Amino acid sequence: MKKYIFIIGLALFAFSCKQSDNTSQKINVDPLPSWNEGTNKKAIIDFVTNITKEGSDKFIPIESRIAVFDNDGTLWCEQPLYFEMVYSIDATKEIATKSAELQKKPEIKALVSGDKATFMKSGEKGVLESFAISHTAVSPDEFDKMAQAWLDTATNAKFNQKYINLTYKPMVELLQYLRNNQFKTYIVSGGSSMFIRNFSQKAYGIPAEQIIGTMFKAEYKNGKISLKPEVWHNDDNVGKPEGIYNIIGKKPVLAFGNSDGDFEMLEWTSTNNSLPNLSLLLHHTDDVREIAYDSLSHIGQLKRGLVEGPAKGWMIVDMKKDFNKVFSYEK
Amino acid sequence: MKKYIFIIGLALFAFSCKQSDNTSQKINVDPLPSWNEGTNKKAIIDFVTNITKEGSDKFIPIESRIAVFDNDGTLWCEQPLYFEMVYSIDATKEIATKSAELQKKPEIKALVSGDKATFMKSGEKGVLESFAISHTAVSPDEFDKMAQAWLDTATNAKFNQKYINLTYKPMVELLQYLRNNQFKTYIVSGGSSMFIRNFSQKAYGIPAEQIIGTMFKAEYKNGKISLKPEVWHNDDNVGKPEGIYNIIGKKPVLAFGNSDGDFEMLEWTSTNNSLPNLSLLLHHTDDVREIAYDSLSHIGQLKRGLVEGPAKGWMIVDMKKDFNKVFSYEK
Repeated sequence: MKKYIFIIGLALFAFSCKQSDNTSQKINVDPLPSWNEGTNKKAIIDFVTNITKEGSDKFIPIESRIAVFDNDGTLWCEQPLYFEMVYSIDATKEIATKSAELQKKPEIKALVSGDKATFMKSGEKGVLESFAISHTAVSPDEFDKMAQAWLDTATNAKFNQKYINLTYKPMVELLQYLRNNQFKTYIVSGGSSMFIRNFSQKAYGIPAEQIIGTMFKAEYKNGKISLKPEVWHNDDNVGKPEGIYNIIGKKPVLAFGNSDGDFEMLEWTSTNNSLPNLSLLLHHTDDVREIAYDSLSHIGQLKRGLVEGPAKGWMIVDMKKDFNKVFSYEK
Repeated sequence: MKKYIFIIGLALFAFSCKQSDNTSQKINVDPLPSWNEGTNKKAIIDFVTNITKEGSDKFIPIESRIAVFDNDGTLWCEQPLYFEMVYSIDATKEIATKSAELQKKPEIKALVSGDKATFMKSGEKGVLESFAISHTAVSPDEFDKMAQAWLDTATNAKFNQKYINLTYKPMVELLQYLRNNQFKTYIVSGGSSMFIRNFSQKAYGIPAEQIIGTMFKAEYKNGKISLKPEVWHNDDNVGKPEGIYNIIGKKPVLAFGNSDGDFEMLEWTSTNNSLPNLSLLLHHTDDVREIAYDSLSHIGQLKRGLVEGPAKGWMIVDMKKDFNKVFSYEK
């Protein structure tokens, strides 16, 4: 009898040891089920495996495991129009409807009266005016309320899905896989921090403080922050490594983008990096499940990266070939 | 015999259970041993206890536990001259010695020739020139090397200690106590991010990416970041809440400063905050162990905070009364 109790005691001890041994649980679970088997998936898993292996010459200390991701076209869809631009137009219309002052601008008046064609014809000027209104003509709190309400309801016509469901499932898996390996995951986006912060935690598991986006000039007065219609940080192209240097203060070891606006971020990550590193570009090649576009696209143009990236050792992820599922809403 | 082995087996099991039960270890350990018992210590511990109690109406979710700390005069000593200014003068001298161009400026020439009096007489102009040289005339990598070397060796004459040893022991304990309770601790400082990043992890356990300081305009080109002698973000006064809004994107629930340069950060934290919050000012009252100063000081002036703070519910921490040890080097 005592023998059995002794065995039970030892078994309990062994079991409790096993419980705390996380490494034993990692084996045999595919961390990236929405990625097809192949060179790219293998290279990603090999990279993470090597840099987390203590004693390996490729080991990266936890505090240096900084991974940066572009948002539009990398973590979620950006076609046929940046989703934040769709929001901006909707919100500007709502805000300007109540303001005779804002309607003095012909393109804003056109927007309010439902004449989208005239607004779109105004080009960059109209877009910038719209952003200034939607993002800075209301308080930051009001902005958050409006953006949340929009994200909860607005639907993308092409996919007949809420925008928030149009994140890429394989990318969300990759973010989680990296965090499971003690990476700190950041979004570094040409979109605005304030917009992305309204869905990044829920959609990607990335908290507000790990978003670097385009930012407006903040102005503090009497306990309140308001925003001026003036860009403080333009987080695109050179703005990406510049923002990362000043705000994170560490060179990333993994950078993932999809357009030439990400070129400098990937270039900085892969140039003179004292640590092993991986730079990746998502190539939109799937005209059936998403939209195929690259060097000629009006949005998310990818030309230089495709030409120069491979010689720099960057991985070109092929959406059609590498993703067995595209969107997060897919079962 | 078997009986003893059984007991050993059970004991091992019990021990392993205890090991993984962190909560049981928290009891009866003073988290703030360098703080004297009293109203302030009790209020800090009560605050943390209440906001971490699930189900309590004061509970703060982990993702909202953002604590911001000023650095100079709050986490380490700032007298008789900001330590970063001492560094800047030393580094400028070293850099300018090798540059005839930089020595064209009379105050820099004076510095190189050892005529500190003339340099100091040039006032703000000389100081800004010195900062521009020490922080931006060399590459960020070179800056880090020089700052590290200085921090490893330079000694504060008054205390005959390396600067890094002049952090406040009770404050380092508070940072750790907050992190043990799932706070994310940030430094929000008028000093430069790039200088603080060279000791914040070691001195405070705060990583580079949780530093918001004054920042220079970064410029990216061909894989390299350089800095222009132009302030991009002045992280003092209104710059503190403005920087927190744009970079963290969450209103803090705890803010700790020591001078009127922190007023706006504490005011923002304690105004219209939807969550329980605590704002604190460190009052330098100890002329024996440190330096007593407030409203008349040339550095770290504290006047408005002392007058208006208490009515806003801010806690005034009294160094003489509340700290039983002051510096980290004290046993």
